[in-house]
Amino acid sequence: MSKPAGDNAVPAETAKKRHREILRTAAQLICQQGYGGTSMQQIAEACGLTKAGLYHHIRSKEHLLLEIMNDGMDTFEEQVLSQVLPIADPVERLRKCMDKHIRLVTGGRDKEITIILHESATLTGDAQIQINARKKRYIRFLESSFTEAVRDGRIRPINPKVAAFSFLGTVNWIYKWFRPDGEIPEDQLSRHMQELFFGGIERSS
Amino acid sequence: MSKPAGDNAVPAETAKKRHREILRTAAQLICQQGYGGTSMQQIAEACGLTKAGLYHHIRSKEHLLLEIMNDGMDTFEEQVLSQVLPIADPVERLRKCMDKHIRLVTGGRDKEITIILHESATLTGDAQIQINARKKRYIRFLESSFTEAVRDGRIRPINPKVAAFSFLGTVNWIYKWFRPDGEIPEDQLSRHMQELFFGGIERSS
Repeated sequence: MSKPAGDNAVPAETAKKRHREILRTAAQLICQQGYGGTSMQQIAEACGLTKAGLYHHIRSKEHLLLEIMNDGMDTFEEQVLSQVLPIADPVERLRKCMDKHIRLVTGGRDKEITIILHESATLTGDAQIQINARKKRYIRFLESSFTEAVRDGRIRPINPKVAAFSFLGTVNWIYKWFRPDGEIPEDQLSRHMQELFFGGIERSS
Repeated sequence: MSKPAGDNAVPAETAKKRHREILRTAAQLICQQGYGGTSMQQIAEACGLTKAGLYHHIRSKEHLLLEIMNDGMDTFEEQVLSQVLPIADPVERLRKCMDKHIRLVTGGRDKEITIILHESATLTGDAQIQINARKKRYIRFLESSFTEAVRDGRIRPINPKVAAFSFLGTVNWIYKWFRPDGEIPEDQLSRHMQELFFGGIERSS
């Protein structure tokens, strides 16, 4: 192994891992107590750091929130959006999207998602613009997929905007009530929700 | 007019009105900043009171939150639940329920609703039990109406629990995106959402 450049130098991988751990710990606290109710002192303590030590890793409290949200959006885009974008048929694309989005919500990445949903009005300025742009990309994807499906006669002539937000509401609400040990298993939830949502709009042929 | 009982006595109506004003002002602040991020000092100032003066009207910060939520649930039960409970046909009952619930969300009582939805994990002890019981009453109403509709062959054999939470997610999400001056008028929103949701589960005959 090569010697680090300076006495305080830390291999980049370790620094990255430490940074990610801080984001996860902070996400846990903010998720429980809300952004307004969580102090940097509390986050530092939960990370086993002094407040000064925490500021070594994190630029500001708002930037920390932005990083948590970007982290959540990265995971969402990797595991959902980029997986379904290439699907040619709009109904198949939307069905797969609902399935993958549901699995993300039920699969334990609920902290970052809760924060993205709850603290949407907390960010200001460029940070808010950045996160809103990422969210809007998803809404536009849904809306244009519904528009395409209507145009191709694949579904009834529903309002694509209302359909997009009904889709989002149905899926985003899951984190409020779903319990992994509850009466509805994860895979059945996805199947039931697709049946309910698409059973309504697909033409019966 | 009869003389008040003591020098400091205030007619009951005036006290009640003042109390309601405090709840509304506090709801506005908590809605914007979150419960954790709002201090009693800020609430007092927004009400034009000293902190001591505020505690004359309000028992504690948590009790204030409980009162705001109960106020919101009172409005919901008056304007939605009690209106639709007597409807004999389960599908008609659920349709009317969606319509009235949507109109409540879009009709400007969004502060209390936002707080009920956002701060659900903030209350503790008996206060939490009380609000959860009122919410569960609504969920049970939806679930049993869907069960009844399936049993009577009025809709496809969908999962009543998933249907109840899909209904709730769709409607509760509205406050996140709906703007009264936006492209979809309130009455059209209700019609589109009903079409989308019920078009899916009602038997085409």
